[in-house]
Amino acid sequence: MVNIALLGLGTVGTGIVEILEKQNKGIQIKKILVNNLHKKRAVNIQPEILCTDFEEILNDNSIKIVVEVTSDMEKGYEYIRKSLECGKHVITASKAIVSKYFEELSQLAQNNEVAFLYEASVGGGIPVLKPLKEELEINEVLEIQGILNGTSNYILSRMVEEGMDYSSALKIAQDLGYAEADPSADVDGHDTLRKLRILGTLGLQGKILEEDILLNGISNITAFDIEQIKGMNSTVKLVGEVKNLGNAFTATVQPTIIHKNSYLANVNMAFNAINIKGNHVGDINFYGPGAGKLPTASAVLTDVMDVVNNTYRKKNPLGKRQLKNANHKIQGKFYLRVPNRKELLEQLDMVADQMISSKEHTAIVTKEVSFMALMDFVEGFGLKKEEYFLGRIFK
Amino acid sequence: MVNIALLGLGTVGTGIVEILEKQNKGIQIKKILVNNLHKKRAVNIQPEILCTDFEEILNDNSIKIVVEVTSDMEKGYEYIRKSLECGKHVITASKAIVSKYFEELSQLAQNNEVAFLYEASVGGGIPVLKPLKEELEINEVLEIQGILNGTSNYILSRMVEEGMDYSSALKIAQDLGYAEADPSADVDGHDTLRKLRILGTLGLQGKILEEDILLNGISNITAFDIEQIKGMNSTVKLVGEVKNLGNAFTATVQPTIIHKNSYLANVNMAFNAINIKGNHVGDINFYGPGAGKLPTASAVLTDVMDVVNNTYRKKNPLGKRQLKNANHKIQGKFYLRVPNRKELLEQLDMVADQMISSKEHTAIVTKEVSFMALMDFVEGFGLKKEEYFLGRIFK
Repeated sequence: MVNIALLGLGTVGTGIVEILEKQNKGIQIKKILVNNLHKKRAVNIQPEILCTDFEEILNDNSIKIVVEVTSDMEKGYEYIRKSLECGKHVITASKAIVSKYFEELSQLAQNNEVAFLYEASVGGGIPVLKPLKEELEINEVLEIQGILNGTSNYILSRMVEEGMDYSSALKIAQDLGYAEADPSADVDGHDTLRKLRILGTLGLQGKILEEDILLNGISNITAFDIEQIKGMNSTVKLVGEVKNLGNAFTATVQPTIIHKNSYLANVNMAFNAINIKGNHVGDINFYGPGAGKLPTASAVLTDVMDVVNNTYRKKNPLGKRQLKNANHKIQGKFYLRVPNRKELLEQLDMVADQMISSKEHTAIVTKEVSFMALMDFVEGFGLKKEEYFLGRIFK
Repeated sequence: MVNIALLGLGTVGTGIVEILEKQNKGIQIKKILVNNLHKKRAVNIQPEILCTDFEEILNDNSIKIVVEVTSDMEKGYEYIRKSLECGKHVITASKAIVSKYFEELSQLAQNNEVAFLYEASVGGGIPVLKPLKEELEINEVLEIQGILNGTSNYILSRMVEEGMDYSSALKIAQDLGYAEADPSADVDGHDTLRKLRILGTLGLQGKILEEDILLNGISNITAFDIEQIKGMNSTVKLVGEVKNLGNAFTATVQPTIIHKNSYLANVNMAFNAINIKGNHVGDINFYGPGAGKLPTASAVLTDVMDVVNNTYRKKNPLGKRQLKNANHKIQGKFYLRVPNRKELLEQLDMVADQMISSKEHTAIVTKEVSFMALMDFVEGFGLKKEEYFLGRIFK
């Protein structure tokens, strides 16, 4: 029997308790750290295993594995750091903590000869980080693309399928619990960005920080844009992408227009998908539930079993490559919708390859252009974020 | 440095040599078993590491890992058995050997406390068997579907995209090296069946043998059928499927008609995809190159690294569940094309829900029917295999 401690008993923590109740896997939850000992819980728990003091867990030498599922980034980080330092294995579901403290915590785990695992932090239930680490033994990763945020994907899917406008789709997502009251972390792309920071840093074996990633969310997309995109036989997804350029990288999170016959175009609703291109293996793709109580709990518990079975990878998975940010080199074709302003329309053929609509708004497909030059063009007319929409056209 | 031996230097063996030439992973190929010492090879190899006598490898105690990539099932099996018995780890890419000797070799590896790994045997380069084994720690697998044969998928993709007939598409697949001169193992579904036997036996944790699987290939599909299927806003794929019915299972390999907006419908050309439904994690899906020199070699080498890093799973992954074959219970809706024969057409409304075409041939969508009853109906008219086409309609 292996004793573990849970830090937090929210959605994912509850899922972990539920699964372990049904399975006899030689795992015992010895302590659960909570804020409130007396709150009513959705699962049956012996009251004596609840505690409010993390030190109780830290000082219990019979607890070998700490599972961090709080939703408090700074406290969670402290708990993880202290647990690793005192020789406990740590598993977390928090992309925010992994993204912010990736290098430090990975090194700390190695120094203390314990596991630091975080499969659930990217792609929810989808097994992707462990397969990625394994592919890296044999492959150089050339690029990674991911639909990494279920909320944005749900909103875009409803807009595309039903011609709904953004605010109606967001409202439904909120009513169904897919989106939070303040949806900005999801729709502005911060959540995708954190997951891309993790995938990219692992995949390219060099540090790619949050601030290295060009960020453009979905909140200014309109039903008009969706209509034009559908007319292009395409759909739109919020995609995080890193590309390996040798000693440099590009990293972006942006609305991406994908031909509807492509595999990624058919990743709908709250599902996530991640594509990894290795120099030997080629393109491999992982698809599944990007969030949810039981899928996320299942991913956390596969990490726990990796420690219990002693099959986890012992060395620090992060590489030491020094990579330059080459986002200024990004080129491509883009969908651009701008307001019908005379001075802008007069100069549009500097960037336009194809006019799609010139009715309520003007929508074009650009020539192959530099992304930075395109932004300069748009911002040169003093357009505010909410006045235009820009989506990259995939491949 | 870990010494390995390669058994065979065909396509996959050559790929392994190529990758290891470029990577310094602490692996040295000490011996390569070949049939002909003097054949010209596509890779540079020191002649002294080639040998024609397996006993040389078996008796070399410095060789810890044997990589079986012969294309000889019976010899390959003998080599694997002897290697495991003398305490060497074994990795194979052969689905035929794994399918035929799965239980025996898995047990033998456990008895001798060595690894027996075969990631490349299903889905080529796609990491799927290891993730499946890991999900099984936390999940009961409810069902598995797979597009597991690149050749069939290539032929069907060309037929659907270009309205080509079966024999032209087969000819192209042969010219491009996707299909062999005798394509029957691929197009009649035997290759898919072996992979499904492996996936199903692992996934359901009980023995599902090749002969337990209902088999129906693609070789009698025609351009007429493709036209009708496209008219249904669908495409057709050769799908292997196992379902978990508690103490029983169904297992089929059959042409499957899939709505074109679905994820599996967009797995095209020689790509493979596998969907696994776990009771906790939900649907997770793996997609990638199902064959090919470097993808397959990459999968073999991730297994090798799993042994080198000592992160492979030590226990026999096969379960002991006693499962009954419940294929007689299979029900569903089917696409059926039959010749325009009066006595048959008169009775067709016993099974038909919807008439699709009654021109050159008659094509219908059936009611929800028992598969066995439908086969009885068809065979009751004395129709031979090549006179009709039957495809299950997915979901």
